Amino acid sequence: MNIVLARSAGFCFGVKRAVNMAFAAAEQAGPICSLGPLIHSPQLVERLQGEGVRVVASVAEMTGDETVIIRSHGIRREEEQQLRQRQLPLVDATCPFVKKAQEYAGLLGEQGYTVVIVGEQEHPEVQGIVSYACSDSVYVVADVAGARQVPSGRRLGLVAQTTQAYENFRAIAMELLGRCKELRVFNTICDATAVRQNEARELAASVDRMLVIGGHNSANTNRLARICSDIQPRTFHIETASEIDPAWLVGAASVGITAGASTPEWIIREVVEKLQQLTK
Amino acid sequence: MNIVLARSAGFCFGVKRAVNMAFAAAEQAGPICSLGPLIHSPQLVERLQGEGVRVVASVAEMTGDETVIIRSHGIRREEEQQLRQRQLPLVDATCPFVKKAQEYAGLLGEQGYTVVIVGEQEHPEVQGIVSYACSDSVYVVADVAGARQVPSGRRLGLVAQTTQAYENFRAIAMELLGRCKELRVFNTICDATAVRQNEARELAASVDRMLVIGGHNSANTNRLARICSDIQPRTFHIETASEIDPAWLVGAASVGITAGASTPEWIIREVVEKLQQLTK
Repeated sequence: MNIVLARSAGFCFGVKRAVNMAFAAAEQAGPICSLGPLIHSPQLVERLQGEGVRVVASVAEMTGDETVIIRSHGIRREEEQQLRQRQLPLVDATCPFVKKAQEYAGLLGEQGYTVVIVGEQEHPEVQGIVSYACSDSVYVVADVAGARQVPSGRRLGLVAQTTQAYENFRAIAMELLGRCKELRVFNTICDATAVRQNEARELAASVDRMLVIGGHNSANTNRLARICSDIQPRTFHIETASEIDPAWLVGAASVGITAGASTPEWIIREVVEKLQQLTK
Repeated sequence: MNIVLARSAGFCFGVKRAVNMAFAAAEQAGPICSLGPLIHSPQLVERLQGEGVRVVASVAEMTGDETVIIRSHGIRREEEQQLRQRQLPLVDATCPFVKKAQEYAGLLGEQGYTVVIVGEQEHPEVQGIVSYACSDSVYVVADVAGARQVPSGRRLGLVAQTTQAYENFRAIAMELLGRCKELRVFNTICDATAVRQNEARELAASVDRMLVIGGHNSANTNRLARICSDIQPRTFHIETASEIDPAWLVGAASVGITAGASTPEWIIREVVEKLQQLTK
């Protein structure tokens, strides 16, 4: 059986960077914690805990003598201010693309624009971007219908959660253009998501089975699995190699594999090895 | 026969204002000229000449003791500078909406954006806006195909000739959004054009004949005539009442009338009177 692993499977640039920073800090620093889980991978967070990195939910939970790692999705401005007030040593592992989105939201808020953020209201990245807009006039919209709820204004500014789909972002921008005299758009979408999805589409179309690896609670992995199963109905979403059912592979000449942005490399490797064993 | 005159027929706000300013200046000032024809109506320009307003093609042609009227479409920045250097008394009849487009182009150029102007390259309004952008990086695009010729850049700024159709403007904005990290759009379209066109559409659909009055060389009148004839094939484009052929009206129960943005009110009145006579 032919096993094809997508080039873009697994960690994106920002996640890879955050993980490297966290392990390096755990090695060098004394007591250390991360404000929220570093990335959306329970397996990786557990490994970091093994290295002494405990996860705290708020600044209040910190002991005061710890180094603090800021997670890849970023934190809220108020949290950053609390950290700075407490003068804790910081390791800022915020993805540089997320940082840009925060900065542009801040610039728009500061210059008096009504700030619109394309994204998922509940996502920590979006909550962070909202806080950096420093404005009472901020709207999070998921789609064109949401954009129609933004009140017409003279000056609208637009940024996006970095993992948004460009077509949705563009459609929202065009809806907003009709609701203002000035529209200032910062395209803060990182194309890693689109690259991974496009590669998954191509791969799913060329294989008999498709495996998508990543947290069952990971938004980007779920989306990836949905994209693949639209093309290859025999698509299976798994979190680890242990979930593979050998019955899935009966009669398959080829299996494609991809993985979400926060799926560690060793989990992908275990899946590949398990498949190799099963088809020996 | 029923004669229906469109509410929006004739002078738009900017043209009306320019004409009022020019006649007032002609009454008060001594020698007076306009740099380029005040509006795109030969009949009106002729009337102004009767009041002593001569049309000059360049600053060099001015005598030096004249009051100068700046036409509704605006002039080029170099011309404005020449006028200011010569310290000639100015009557600035530039349409305030055109002025806004010039100012926004200037702001974008000053702040380092590549400036894109949606409009007709050869139109004096567009040539004026281009000059106020004060940048080497200015592109005039007429449509989406034109927008595809704009080189990808980090920061693009967009304004429009005031008479452009919003749908075209929006489509170009969408194309440009994919070519940059930041797109800043000032919607400088004046809705008088759309209001007139929409009313003409409705009127053309409800009458047996349609008359569109305006200069045969007037871009906006030609567009208006084309819109009407798509709906009512018995549409006739005339410049003055003298062009009406009575044969057009045979068997008609109703005639609709509209007129371009630079068609003087007295020309419209003459057309209505001529129709009334013909159908008495």
